[in-house]
Amino acid sequence: MSASTNAFSLPRGFRAAGHACGIKADPSTPDLSLFVSEVPCAAAGVFTQNRVVGAPVHVSRERVPGDSVRGVVINSGNANACTGERGLEDARWMTAEIAARLGCRAADVLVCSTGVIGHFLPREKLAAGLPMLVERLGTSEDSLATAARGMMTTDTVPKLSSRAVNVNGQTVTVTGAAKGAAMIAPNMATMLAVVMTDARLSGGETASLLKEAVDVSFNCISVDQHTSTSDTVLMLANGQACDEGEATAAENQDFREAVREVCTDLAQQIIRDAEGAAHFVTVDVTGTRTREDAHRIAKAVADSPLVKTAVTGNDPNWGRIVSAAGYAGVEFAEEQCSLSINGIEVYRRGSPTECDEQRVSAAMATGEVGIELQFELGEGTSGEGTARIWTCDLTTEYVRLNSESTT
Amino acid sequence: MSASTNAFSLPRGFRAAGHACGIKADPSTPDLSLFVSEVPCAAAGVFTQNRVVGAPVHVSRERVPGDSVRGVVINSGNANACTGERGLEDARWMTAEIAARLGCRAADVLVCSTGVIGHFLPREKLAAGLPMLVERLGTSEDSLATAARGMMTTDTVPKLSSRAVNVNGQTVTVTGAAKGAAMIAPNMATMLAVVMTDARLSGGETASLLKEAVDVSFNCISVDQHTSTSDTVLMLANGQACDEGEATAAENQDFREAVREVCTDLAQQIIRDAEGAAHFVTVDVTGTRTREDAHRIAKAVADSPLVKTAVTGNDPNWGRIVSAAGYAGVEFAEEQCSLSINGIEVYRRGSPTECDEQRVSAAMATGEVGIELQFELGEGTSGEGTARIWTCDLTTEYVRLNSESTT
Repeated sequence: MSASTNAFSLPRGFRAAGHACGIKADPSTPDLSLFVSEVPCAAAGVFTQNRVVGAPVHVSRERVPGDSVRGVVINSGNANACTGERGLEDARWMTAEIAARLGCRAADVLVCSTGVIGHFLPREKLAAGLPMLVERLGTSEDSLATAARGMMTTDTVPKLSSRAVNVNGQTVTVTGAAKGAAMIAPNMATMLAVVMTDARLSGGETASLLKEAVDVSFNCISVDQHTSTSDTVLMLANGQACDEGEATAAENQDFREAVREVCTDLAQQIIRDAEGAAHFVTVDVTGTRTREDAHRIAKAVADSPLVKTAVTGNDPNWGRIVSAAGYAGVEFAEEQCSLSINGIEVYRRGSPTECDEQRVSAAMATGEVGIELQFELGEGTSGEGTARIWTCDLTTEYVRLNSESTT
Repeated sequence: MSASTNAFSLPRGFRAAGHACGIKADPSTPDLSLFVSEVPCAAAGVFTQNRVVGAPVHVSRERVPGDSVRGVVINSGNANACTGERGLEDARWMTAEIAARLGCRAADVLVCSTGVIGHFLPREKLAAGLPMLVERLGTSEDSLATAARGMMTTDTVPKLSSRAVNVNGQTVTVTGAAKGAAMIAPNMATMLAVVMTDARLSGGETASLLKEAVDVSFNCISVDQHTSTSDTVLMLANGQACDEGEATAAENQDFREAVREVCTDLAQQIIRDAEGAAHFVTVDVTGTRTREDAHRIAKAVADSPLVKTAVTGNDPNWGRIVSAAGYAGVEFAEEQCSLSINGIEVYRRGSPTECDEQRVSAAMATGEVGIELQFELGEGTSGEGTARIWTCDLTTEYVRLNSESTT
C-alpha cells in the first residue's frame, strides 16, 4: 500500500519554482509556476473535451505522449484563452524561453495558462519573469509550495498531494499540484494539475496510467457542469528512483493505486475549495445496468441546481434528488429506486420512509453530505452499474462571485 | 392573422372557477381551479418526460387523447406527488367528485396537482371545497382570472393569454391559463397549462396540434434544467364556435398560429415570473447542421450557471457563452462561430471583436437579453439548423428561495 507523506516532497530529479512577475493585481502573489526534471521524462496529458480550447492546450496536446519532456510552465492571472495565431505564438514562445535556459528543445516543454480571459498575455512582464522563474528552481518543500501557489486563481489554498510506494525494492514518490475549478468573472472555470513521479514508465504507459487515474478522480468532480476550455492534467515520469534496465512501474498495483490516490486527493481538494461552497457532497449510485447509466444519474443529481440548493439548506429533499435521477435519461421505475442521505434511508422503493428528517438535516449540517441512490436494475447483468461523483452545493456566495461584472 | 384580445375571454361554451378551500397558508388564496366545457371536447395532453411522475399525470395520461372530455380540475398548495395506490386513488376521487356534479363520467375529467410535496392530499378540505368550486363556475373574465390564480404556487402573477381568429367565417377563440416553473423548498418545479378553444377538432387533431405548439413554446423554456415530475399541458376543443358538419380547424394556418402564440405567450410569462429572475434571456442559435444540434447548443448555453450569472451581472462574457456551446456535444471549430449580444457582435469567427463592452452591458441592463450564436456549419444541408430558447438569469434570490429549509 502507498503511504501518505507528511511533507509534500518532490520526487527525485524534479525541481519546482513559483515567481511573481506582476500579472496579478497584488505584485507579491506568484503568477508563474515551473516544474522541471533534470532528465527527460515520459509524459502524458488529459485535456478538456470542449470544442473550444485555449492555445496552450493546442500546444501541449501536440507534445504528448512523449519520452523527452523536461518540464511544465504555467502562468496564472491572465489566461491565454485567445485562439488564433497570436495565442499560439505566445504559448510556444513561453516554452522556448524556458527551454533556452534548460538547454532543451521548446518541444520538450509543456505549457498551461489560467486566469482572466479577454486579453493577450503581457509579454514584457513574462519576458522579465520567466528567466527569474528558472533561477528560482529548487527541490525544497518551499519551492514546491510556491509553485503550487503560482498556478492559483481564485483558489484560497494551494493544492498538493504526495504518496510514497515501494516498487521493486525502491521507494518511488508520486507528487501532484493542482489548481481548482474556481471561477470569478470574467474567468472561465479551469482545472490544472501536474503529477510527477520518479518511477520509470514509457510515454505510452504514462498515458494509459494517467487516463485510468483521471477517469476515477478529476472526471468525477463537478462544480457547475461548465467544462473549461483549458482543463489540463499532465503527468511526468523520470525514472530517477529506479536502476537502469529495471522493469517499469506500469504493472505495479501499489504504484497505480498511488497515482489514483494523488489524483483523487487533488480532485477532492478542488471541490472543497470551490467558490462559495459550504458542503462537500459525495453522490453514489449503485445497481444500474452499466457504469455509464450510474454515471449519468450521478451527474444529473450533482448538477441539479435544485439538489445543490437543497444541500445548501441542509434539506433532505428526496423529491428533488429522485426527480433529478428521473430526467437523467436512464429507464427505471420508481419502485426500483431507494435513497439514503448520510446513511439514513429517506426513500425506499418508490415511497418516502418514516425517517427522522431533523436527524438527517443535522447530519447534513456537518458540511459532509453523502447521497446514495440504490437501484434494482442490475439483475442478470455484470453488476458494474456503480459510479461516484464529488460535488459541492450552490450558495448565494457562488452567484455573487460569478455575477460581479468587471465591465 | 390572429389578434391579441384585450380581455381574457373564455371561448364559447367554457366556464371557469377558482376557490379557496384552505390548503394554502392564507385561507383566502384560491387553491382550486376548474375549467369546464358545456359539451364534450376533443382533448389532448403533453406530459413530463421524467421517469418519476406524480399520480395525476398517470391518471390524466390515460384519458387523452379523447373526444368526450368535459373539464380539468387542479389543486395547488399541496402536490399529489405521491405515487402508489393512495396517490392514484386521491387523483381519481377528485375527478369523480367533479364528474358527479357535472353529470359526466369521472374518466371525462382531467386532473393536475402542484405545490409542496411530501404529504397526501387533505381529503376533508377537498371534499368541502370541490362542490363549492363547481358552484362558482362562470363565464366572466373574473371567473377565468380566479381560476388562473387557483393554480399558482410561488408565481407572483396569474398567467393568461387569449387570441381570436377567423376560421371559415367564424370568430374562434383560443385561451390558455398557466402556472410557472417557480420553486420553493421543498416543492418541485411544476409547469401546468390548460388551453381551451371553441374551434372544432378531433382528439387526434388536438394532439398533433398541441404537440406542434408545445415543441416551439413550453419545450423551449428552461429555468434550471430540472424537469418536474408533474409538468402538464392540456388542450380542450369544444367546437362551439362552429356550425355542425363544418370542416375542423386543424388545417387552418391562422388557427394553428393562434394556438402557437397562446402557448408561446404563456411560456414567456413563466420565464418572466421565474423565481428570483431579473433578466429575460432569448438564446438564438443559427447555422448548424440540424435543428437538434442548434437546440442542444442553445440548451447548454441557457442552462450554464456561468452564463446565467454573467447575465445577472450584465457582463457580455463571450468566453462563458462560447465555451458553453463548446461542451454541448456538437462538432464545430472556433472559426465557425460568431456571437452577438443584444444585436452587437462581440465575437466573430473565433476571436473577440473590438466592440464597446460598456454599450453591450448597458443594453443587457434593460433586463432583456438576446444571445445570438451564428454558426457556419450548414453548407449543403437543409439549413434547418436553428433553435430559440427562453431562459432567465441566476440570482442570489433564486438560491435563497430554494435553499430555505422547511425541516
